[in-house]
Amino acid sequence: MGKIKRALISVYNKSGVVDLAKVLKNEFNIEILSTGGTAKILEQNGIEVIKVEDYIQTPEMFDGRVKTLHPKIEGGILMRQELSKDLQDAKKYGILPIDLVVCNLYPFWEAINNPRNTVKDNLEMIDIGGPTMIRSAAKNYYNVVVVSDPIQYPSIIEELRLNNGDVSLETRVKLAKSVFETMAVYDGSIAEYLNRIINPSEKMPDFLFRAYKKVQNCRYGENWEQNAAYYRDLNAKVGLHNFEQLHGKEISFNNYLDIDACVQLLLDFGTNEYLCAIFKHTNPNGVAIDYKSQLEATKRALSCDPLSAFGGIFGFNKIVEKETVEFLINEKKMFIEVIVAPDYEEDALKILKSKKDLRILIYKNMFEMKDLFFSRLEIRGTLGGALFQDYDCGPIIKTWDVKTTRNVTESEKKALIFAYRVSKFAKSNSAVFAKEYDTGIYTIGIGSGQQSRVHVVKLAAEKAKEFGHGEELIGSVTGTDSFFPFPDGLIAAADAGAKAIINPGGSIRDDLCIEEANKRNISLVFCGKRVFKH
Amino acid sequence: MGKIKRALISVYNKSGVVDLAKVLKNEFNIEILSTGGTAKILEQNGIEVIKVEDYIQTPEMFDGRVKTLHPKIEGGILMRQELSKDLQDAKKYGILPIDLVVCNLYPFWEAINNPRNTVKDNLEMIDIGGPTMIRSAAKNYYNVVVVSDPIQYPSIIEELRLNNGDVSLETRVKLAKSVFETMAVYDGSIAEYLNRIINPSEKMPDFLFRAYKKVQNCRYGENWEQNAAYYRDLNAKVGLHNFEQLHGKEISFNNYLDIDACVQLLLDFGTNEYLCAIFKHTNPNGVAIDYKSQLEATKRALSCDPLSAFGGIFGFNKIVEKETVEFLINEKKMFIEVIVAPDYEEDALKILKSKKDLRILIYKNMFEMKDLFFSRLEIRGTLGGALFQDYDCGPIIKTWDVKTTRNVTESEKKALIFAYRVSKFAKSNSAVFAKEYDTGIYTIGIGSGQQSRVHVVKLAAEKAKEFGHGEELIGSVTGTDSFFPFPDGLIAAADAGAKAIINPGGSIRDDLCIEEANKRNISLVFCGKRVFKH
Repeated sequence: MGKIKRALISVYNKSGVVDLAKVLKNEFNIEILSTGGTAKILEQNGIEVIKVEDYIQTPEMFDGRVKTLHPKIEGGILMRQELSKDLQDAKKYGILPIDLVVCNLYPFWEAINNPRNTVKDNLEMIDIGGPTMIRSAAKNYYNVVVVSDPIQYPSIIEELRLNNGDVSLETRVKLAKSVFETMAVYDGSIAEYLNRIINPSEKMPDFLFRAYKKVQNCRYGENWEQNAAYYRDLNAKVGLHNFEQLHGKEISFNNYLDIDACVQLLLDFGTNEYLCAIFKHTNPNGVAIDYKSQLEATKRALSCDPLSAFGGIFGFNKIVEKETVEFLINEKKMFIEVIVAPDYEEDALKILKSKKDLRILIYKNMFEMKDLFFSRLEIRGTLGGALFQDYDCGPIIKTWDVKTTRNVTESEKKALIFAYRVSKFAKSNSAVFAKEYDTGIYTIGIGSGQQSRVHVVKLAAEKAKEFGHGEELIGSVTGTDSFFPFPDGLIAAADAGAKAIINPGGSIRDDLCIEEANKRNISLVFCGKRVFKH
Repeated sequence: MGKIKRALISVYNKSGVVDLAKVLKNEFNIEILSTGGTAKILEQNGIEVIKVEDYIQTPEMFDGRVKTLHPKIEGGILMRQELSKDLQDAKKYGILPIDLVVCNLYPFWEAINNPRNTVKDNLEMIDIGGPTMIRSAAKNYYNVVVVSDPIQYPSIIEELRLNNGDVSLETRVKLAKSVFETMAVYDGSIAEYLNRIINPSEKMPDFLFRAYKKVQNCRYGENWEQNAAYYRDLNAKVGLHNFEQLHGKEISFNNYLDIDACVQLLLDFGTNEYLCAIFKHTNPNGVAIDYKSQLEATKRALSCDPLSAFGGIFGFNKIVEKETVEFLINEKKMFIEVIVAPDYEEDALKILKSKKDLRILIYKNMFEMKDLFFSRLEIRGTLGGALFQDYDCGPIIKTWDVKTTRNVTESEKKALIFAYRVSKFAKSNSAVFAKEYDTGIYTIGIGSGQQSRVHVVKLAAEKAKEFGHGEELIGSVTGTDSFFPFPDGLIAAADAGAKAIINPGGSIRDDLCIEEANKRNISLVFCGKRVFKH
């Protein structure tokens, strides 16, 4: 290491490059080698450069496909300036050591997003010279400083100024790491693109690549002994990291899991009605929509299981109102771990912030981004591998097939669709009792995570009774996430008071279930879509 | 495209390269350019080559850091042979078109696994020339065939022979894709390595990448409308893909989730006793260990909830015996989705195979590989990101702190540890009632996936009663995966008949719980470790 004497500048993204070069030249008297378009813009701005083609005495070839791939350039970057034999080699072949490389890549990822581009257009945007230069410089970071992103310019300028024209080893290795991260993402994207070319109809490519950038260390993981952190997917356009935290304690590992579950439900429900959803351990434990009032939706959601709501995650689909917060915080003295919403009234926020630890999350555009949220494949890690799948975000009802003599009422139909949608977000097996009231629909009993269907129906009914919804069970509806393997689950729902039940259908004993439903004069709807969640 | 006339061969891994070169030269009269060590070995084997340094009239520099980085090489690879202006450029600068590149990279990943290597040794193993050649060739796959792995040699030879010395576009693009996959993994590994250099004590690096190779398309995902596939992690040393399927239907998405959960439990329990574990929807619904008999362990595991065991995943930690299978298949007519074990007796396998669909999985070395199974970080996908954490595989008990006047008996202690370990693998909140019998310990009631602790304890007790374990509840033990936020859960366990209860402790109301336990003359143990699973 030592004072930087010579820089090579060759960038596709030219923002900030003139200012940087001026500093290099005027403040530190660094000699600048430069290529094509970059050299031109620097010269236009009065910065003296040596053109690479003059230095290597070889012109650009093949429309610029070969510009810098030359021993005098790559040798200048790769030589070990601390070794006298390398210095001798350099002298012998007229190679000048390069101490700083400023370079960024053709934006391949932009090319492939342009629908007018042909495959050959896109291939043309695979950068070869750039990666070679920055990888060489990164390998040789003891001798070379590599700046591969305009975002790094200000800190480099600052460090040069503080450090008398040199850059510390610590910074050098960080810059080198950044190069290999960039390259991994870059080449991973190209591999994914070629996969799609090879087999355009294949939804699940042969090779998948994910690059993650740390957003936050977690204090611990799922449990106290586990190290953990939250990362964003560098190729995802939107994600949980777009939620801004306005207040409160650091988000924990388990908070993230709950927030993810809650946001998925919010996005799925949309913004037609006022919604309140309360989550605990990644399961909904109370959900309500109200046609007129957020406060009412909140009261109803809470009433489903007020005990477990303690320490829950509260999600809202519209601006959180002052009266909602007054009810939760002042009246109910509710202990809330996290609140998630697209927005907050100013007075609501003030009350929420009176709770020191309460994590308040906001993302104004969350509903506009729905499609992008679900556009990446869902990943489920396993030992030594992972399952990938599409997010399930088609319509909640595929067919509407009433299998019984008794049809459903309009009110029941609305409640059935609601119950089924909530069931989709509860761990399998799940069962949800719901009911329409004068201005909305709400869950009166949610059962989740059971190994058998009959148990989960009974569990949901028992919880409804425990929390004062015994009478409401009479005439309620039930949604359950897969078919009844035996009629026992249906009978349990009917015995609890359900008048209409929805499930996908598809059991070899469907006929028995229909028979039992008819016997009890209740309705059974098959919706043709299973909504397991494990 | 067209007949291949000129090849560039420059490989680190030299296996198979002589045979390949002989075919190229002798059968297709392809001119061979080659570098340093590769040229030497080819010449020693009587294959005529043109040395790159002679061709470019520039020697290797800087101990081989610069060998092929020259316009005559890179131009020869990158030129568009279909364009007359590129052909003119080539002619003008004496560049010969290269149609085939055979190259593989310095094994950086091996270098960093060598503990004697210094950082500089490892940096030296970052390949620059190789990536530039193969990336150039891959970009230009219409003109250049790129062979980046010796594994590809046989199929390339075959295709050259079938195709009169040419390679199809389909193969070319696949080979190109393979290059970018290789590069993504290669550079991702370097980035991870540099991350560790920058901050050796940081358990969760700033950047993480995962490269996945498809093992199997799933017929559908978690639900019928979802596309899905199972992938292995290219950097994992061992994983679920090491289980060989001996028989049965294709493994489904949900099967994989269950198998993963089951295998984790098997690995955690180890092989001290005979173990049988039955899973459904990623939750254990019956687990037993027996000191003497696999059959007895199986009967006891099944007895916990024989209803939900229908369609379950059955896991064993030792060779599956004939009498075990006779019991399950012949006597109990059990419908089993998947069976997982380190091995099977021949007669057991015969009976199992009589069930056409039954998925039989085997992995003989699974227990020897335990540490490797858990050595990668666990990944939990979220919208636009992921949580990463260590697997939780420390001792199941951190402290053994009996908080009550009443101590635990030796038998209770064994049962408590067992119950707590099962609780670790049940979705939170979980509660497990267990009991020692004359030759083992088994679960008599498992509750899982509940939003409140009191409910899950009650649920587990009710299931125990439902399946005929009401009397055994008296004098049983209870393990539950986190502390009691209120004494109600503890009271519910005591009311059900538990004489000893284990949880991590840590609630602000721990004192109230201890008081209630003492009042009832039962034991309460705090083990200092939480075992949430979401």
